[in-house]
Amino acid sequence: MTDLANDLFLRACLRQPTERTPVWMMRQAGRYLPEYRATRAKAGDFLTLCKTPELACEVTLQPVELVGVDAAILFSDILVVPEAMGMELLFTAGEGPKFPQPIRTAADVARLPVPDPMVELKYVMDAIALIRRSLAGRVPLIGFSGSPWTLATYAVEGGGSKNFSVIKKMLFNDPQTLHQLLDKLADSVAVYLNAQIASGVQAVQIFDTWGGVLTTSDYREFSLHYMQKILDQLTRDHDGRRVPVILYTKGGMGWLEQIAATGCDVVGLDWTIDIDRAKARIGDQVALQGNMDPCMLYANPDRIRSEVRDILARFGEGCGHIFNLGHGITPDVPVAHARAFIQAVKEESPAFHRQAAA
Amino acid sequence: MTDLANDLFLRACLRQPTERTPVWMMRQAGRYLPEYRATRAKAGDFLTLCKTPELACEVTLQPVELVGVDAAILFSDILVVPEAMGMELLFTAGEGPKFPQPIRTAADVARLPVPDPMVELKYVMDAIALIRRSLAGRVPLIGFSGSPWTLATYAVEGGGSKNFSVIKKMLFNDPQTLHQLLDKLADSVAVYLNAQIASGVQAVQIFDTWGGVLTTSDYREFSLHYMQKILDQLTRDHDGRRVPVILYTKGGMGWLEQIAATGCDVVGLDWTIDIDRAKARIGDQVALQGNMDPCMLYANPDRIRSEVRDILARFGEGCGHIFNLGHGITPDVPVAHARAFIQAVKEESPAFHRQAAA
Repeated sequence: MTDLANDLFLRACLRQPTERTPVWMMRQAGRYLPEYRATRAKAGDFLTLCKTPELACEVTLQPVELVGVDAAILFSDILVVPEAMGMELLFTAGEGPKFPQPIRTAADVARLPVPDPMVELKYVMDAIALIRRSLAGRVPLIGFSGSPWTLATYAVEGGGSKNFSVIKKMLFNDPQTLHQLLDKLADSVAVYLNAQIASGVQAVQIFDTWGGVLTTSDYREFSLHYMQKILDQLTRDHDGRRVPVILYTKGGMGWLEQIAATGCDVVGLDWTIDIDRAKARIGDQVALQGNMDPCMLYANPDRIRSEVRDILARFGEGCGHIFNLGHGITPDVPVAHARAFIQAVKEESPAFHRQAAA
Repeated sequence: MTDLANDLFLRACLRQPTERTPVWMMRQAGRYLPEYRATRAKAGDFLTLCKTPELACEVTLQPVELVGVDAAILFSDILVVPEAMGMELLFTAGEGPKFPQPIRTAADVARLPVPDPMVELKYVMDAIALIRRSLAGRVPLIGFSGSPWTLATYAVEGGGSKNFSVIKKMLFNDPQTLHQLLDKLADSVAVYLNAQIASGVQAVQIFDTWGGVLTTSDYREFSLHYMQKILDQLTRDHDGRRVPVILYTKGGMGWLEQIAATGCDVVGLDWTIDIDRAKARIGDQVALQGNMDPCMLYANPDRIRSEVRDILARFGEGCGHIFNLGHGITPDVPVAHARAFIQAVKEESPAFHRQAAA
């Protein structure tokens, strides 16, 4: 299928047989790794790390080499998209990202351009090319973006939020302006992901981190609709290969059927739903990615292994499972535990793929 | 049924016919009310407000008189229970609650007594007696407590949390200690709620604000199990009247059947599930409370009214709906909007209760 030494991830995304369950971790290139912290220190600040292809490449490869994951994911931040649209973005130590001039009015939205990813986000494309060369076919490379709704929460709130009160005020009182913003973000994300695919990523994931704070009808109208719009514009085949698309909505357990119906290849699950229930609902249409509680990595390796076994058993025999955490790995996890997790999936999962091996 | 001028809330909890849908708001005695802020200023600090029956009574009655809700809820804080168990509790302005000496070991747990609510929490019982006298039968009074799991998150983390990493470390690595803590909290909550009932509250709600951060099996083992333990100890009839019990787990949409199976009278819903779906799942066993997105109160009154109408229509004709927000009202909501919400429920709901009126 590809010239990859390990294409388990891509095959599982397409629900093709594999000898074992592939595994990677959201936020796997991150602060829990001392090597990441060293590269980050070299960069000076977080945005410089994102914008320097050599350094972004370095941290992208670290979990492949140090932890043994079955896929690399481009090191970047979801907020580089609004930044590329002209919004000043600050990462202040210990404070999380800030947009000092948030989007509040129709005029603010009108001023935002759809960026040319080959210009404003060229550093990402350069990083992708470099990562692909450095990976040299060891594992596939995943590209990603935030969902329009999730990007809009930061752009409108001006940073992270607890209640999302500012963007919900806009949603309820001025939905037209919010729709214009989401539409522009969807177009920006679509061209951005297509540029990533053209530059060499072999799958893409859309992170809808904050879709779960919406009601069902608002989720459909303000989040899922715009992910669908992106999907409809995406390059789904490149160089004769299918480019799998993963949709991940944290807190989206109520909407799995609608998410699967977008035509994505994989639905990402958080840890609050049992994977057997998710499989019963949508497993005949899509592959499933997930879904161990990231906090399980605080447990000792034996406990981690028993949890891995439990999730594998819930998914059961057969194709279409990519093991992952239900959300990003947290910074204070011991590296040995992350390694034990990956190792446990590799050792425990072949028993569930006997047909493929036979 | 009672000597109440307005017993709509109690009847709806028991799925008895009502002429319209009763309505109240979680956190209705709160900072969005200028009158609350004035009483709070008089008290000096938050804990003094909780511990001074006259002032707690004053703020409990404010939403009844100023906003027109169909039930009063005791003004207090869920964390007075661990405080009554001897944990020092600080409310620092703008920082949220803090326990400077959090519970981390089996020895810490062993040192915690089950409090005598008539001693350590006597100020709550005094407030209840005073509130009942001041209400003079206008509307029923709801008592409440945090769930053992939710109380434990604060007691173990030492305050609010984002990832709940400290308590989850305990959950995965030292579940026995956590079980001992939860067991003691369950006993403390049970005697506390029974004392509230003996003192005059006419229904009780258990707030499981953080149950939704758990996996399904951990929710069952570490949260629901201990709410069940409380239910099994609760006084369910007092003075010849049923005392309805409301269980509310934020993020609990995956576990509605298990929550209803505890034998509670009412299941509280957050706003991420459509109430018609919840009703189809458990509406034959329990009443439902909820579930408008609290942020909807930022919208203009017309938009609020159309949302109220939508939720009423989803629930449809018949008994067993207590209208509420899906979580607490936020401090920056205009009072006029809160009033418009209550008014909209009162005006729009009779159409769904024609049989009762006929």
